Amino acid sequence: MNETNLRITLAGRPQGWPEAEHFRVEQAPLPQPGAGQVLVRNRWLSLDPYMRGRMSDAKSYVEPVALGDVMPGGTVGEVVASNAASLQVGDLVTGMLGWQRYAVADAAALRRIDAAGVAPQAFLGALGMPGVTAWYGLQQICRPQPGQTVVVTAASGAVGSVVGQLAKAAGCRVVGVAGGERKCRHVVDELGFDACVDYKAGRLHDDLRDALPDGADCLFENVGGEIFDALLARTRPFARVALCGMIADYNNAEPYRMKNLRAVLVNRLLLQGFIVSEHMELWPQALRELGALAASGRLRWRETVAEGLEQAPAAFVGMLRGDNLGKQLVRID
Amino acid sequence: MNETNLRITLAGRPQGWPEAEHFRVEQAPLPQPGAGQVLVRNRWLSLDPYMRGRMSDAKSYVEPVALGDVMPGGTVGEVVASNAASLQVGDLVTGMLGWQRYAVADAAALRRIDAAGVAPQAFLGALGMPGVTAWYGLQQICRPQPGQTVVVTAASGAVGSVVGQLAKAAGCRVVGVAGGERKCRHVVDELGFDACVDYKAGRLHDDLRDALPDGADCLFENVGGEIFDALLARTRPFARVALCGMIADYNNAEPYRMKNLRAVLVNRLLLQGFIVSEHMELWPQALRELGALAASGRLRWRETVAEGLEQAPAAFVGMLRGDNLGKQLVRID
Repeated sequence: MNETNLRITLAGRPQGWPEAEHFRVEQAPLPQPGAGQVLVRNRWLSLDPYMRGRMSDAKSYVEPVALGDVMPGGTVGEVVASNAASLQVGDLVTGMLGWQRYAVADAAALRRIDAAGVAPQAFLGALGMPGVTAWYGLQQICRPQPGQTVVVTAASGAVGSVVGQLAKAAGCRVVGVAGGERKCRHVVDELGFDACVDYKAGRLHDDLRDALPDGADCLFENVGGEIFDALLARTRPFARVALCGMIADYNNAEPYRMKNLRAVLVNRLLLQGFIVSEHMELWPQALRELGALAASGRLRWRETVAEGLEQAPAAFVGMLRGDNLGKQLVRID
Repeated sequence: MNETNLRITLAGRPQGWPEAEHFRVEQAPLPQPGAGQVLVRNRWLSLDPYMRGRMSDAKSYVEPVALGDVMPGGTVGEVVASNAASLQVGDLVTGMLGWQRYAVADAAALRRIDAAGVAPQAFLGALGMPGVTAWYGLQQICRPQPGQTVVVTAASGAVGSVVGQLAKAAGCRVVGVAGGERKCRHVVDELGFDACVDYKAGRLHDDLRDALPDGADCLFENVGGEIFDALLARTRPFARVALCGMIADYNNAEPYRMKNLRAVLVNRLLLQGFIVSEHMELWPQALRELGALAASGRLRWRETVAEGLEQAPAAFVGMLRGDNLGKQLVRID
């Protein structure tokens, strides 16, 4: 092979919103697999909010990406060379191979996927990390009972859309919060949510009160900021809050300042932050349940696809702004 | 008996700090016990932060006190007339008999206390509701392991002082936060805390960093506001936060606005609000453990005593301002 590798590295650390100058699109030599390793030709890249945190050197739960390193990310690709007995050329695999066309990895760090009956990129969405994230926060932290009310923010996103459908399958009333009429129509008309509040409509507090006349028993929080604050005020006694993301703050120098924390005391809330990669022992169960729901037609998803790896930085910023509907992907041509 | 009953009722709802005009000191006819009831002559009244919430008609976990009703509160007193087989004249009892010299109650609503070897008012403090509050939040929510670091705010108060001593007995490093040098000296020198940060010294953030070089595994929060916010930034991964009170906000029209909620996500915190009266099934175990610790000399306490029921309003406001050291009581003469 005389091909080179197209890849995108971190060129600078953004203070606020990421821009083109913070990424470098570059060619590199094609990597060669060692013993026990494979060379993968990536076909799909997942774009996810957590990547914004990795671009900063602020204290967080993982090390920041070093300047000059390939941007991290989940991918689906095809094995094109193998020095590992467990993987064959032609196998479809998913792993954390980053923003690049080719990558070398230990076979043990990859998961072979069987894409019969499902598009392979689903393993980056509802049947992958975002789906398991939704499952974990809902089933392990919120633990909703039939008849209870579940609220999920970023409701049309890769995680939120699965949260809502899992909660419906569990017999709950589900209220989404999303930005814009189109997203709200999508989660109600196509995903079966009971209601959706458009936070961009300018009536956030009134609309939440109307959508939650008896309050919420579970809150799956992806957004943070003013929306989270407003939802805390609408919790019922003993409600559970799964804190999955605070994307509203990721690009702000100063965080939104929360005023409704007293609800944690008054309503005896349980509030828990989590990171799904720390609960790998539950992934098989989660993926089994998500797969079964998908096979029965009760778990659906949308994708927003950027064409070509060079488009990844713009698509990433668009996702942080909420331009996407459903899972944001990059097709690597 | 031709005596009348001295009592203090709610005369108005404070917007900010309670003042004399919000209470009425009055004489009322002596109540008469019905079948299954007793007449109690209260000797000690407990003053506690939760009472401030009951004076407001804002939404909370209990109904507000009605205007004209006797202020609620825990008491220790002596049975002076009995129509109940289970209680004799002369028995010492504790119950929620309110800010008054005499009260009638169902015998079943009172607990007989055996004050051999301990002052009876201890059943309003370390061996009563505040002690069980400390026990519940620490043992059921924080669940500290030996060698971990526990932080408790309002460290010299009725609850905080027990939290710290229970945590020391559990093999933890204990850091208190209290207002003023005297309180800090007390919790370190007399109660055995490892360190104490005086939040009135004007170096809150630096002092917390110095006292918690490796962060905190457990936070028992009684205060809220800026101190809570600063402590969130000093939590370790997987720390637990028992949210017991937010006294800093009780007299403010606008709550303090928290900026460090992102720590819940970054550090995967568990944060839980609780009210000890909802966990009555655990009181016997808690009181047994607290009693054993007291008998062994490893649970100590201080009291601040106001002399005479008429002093209760002023003593109550003083407690909200932090004037007291240890348990704030009123001796009812």
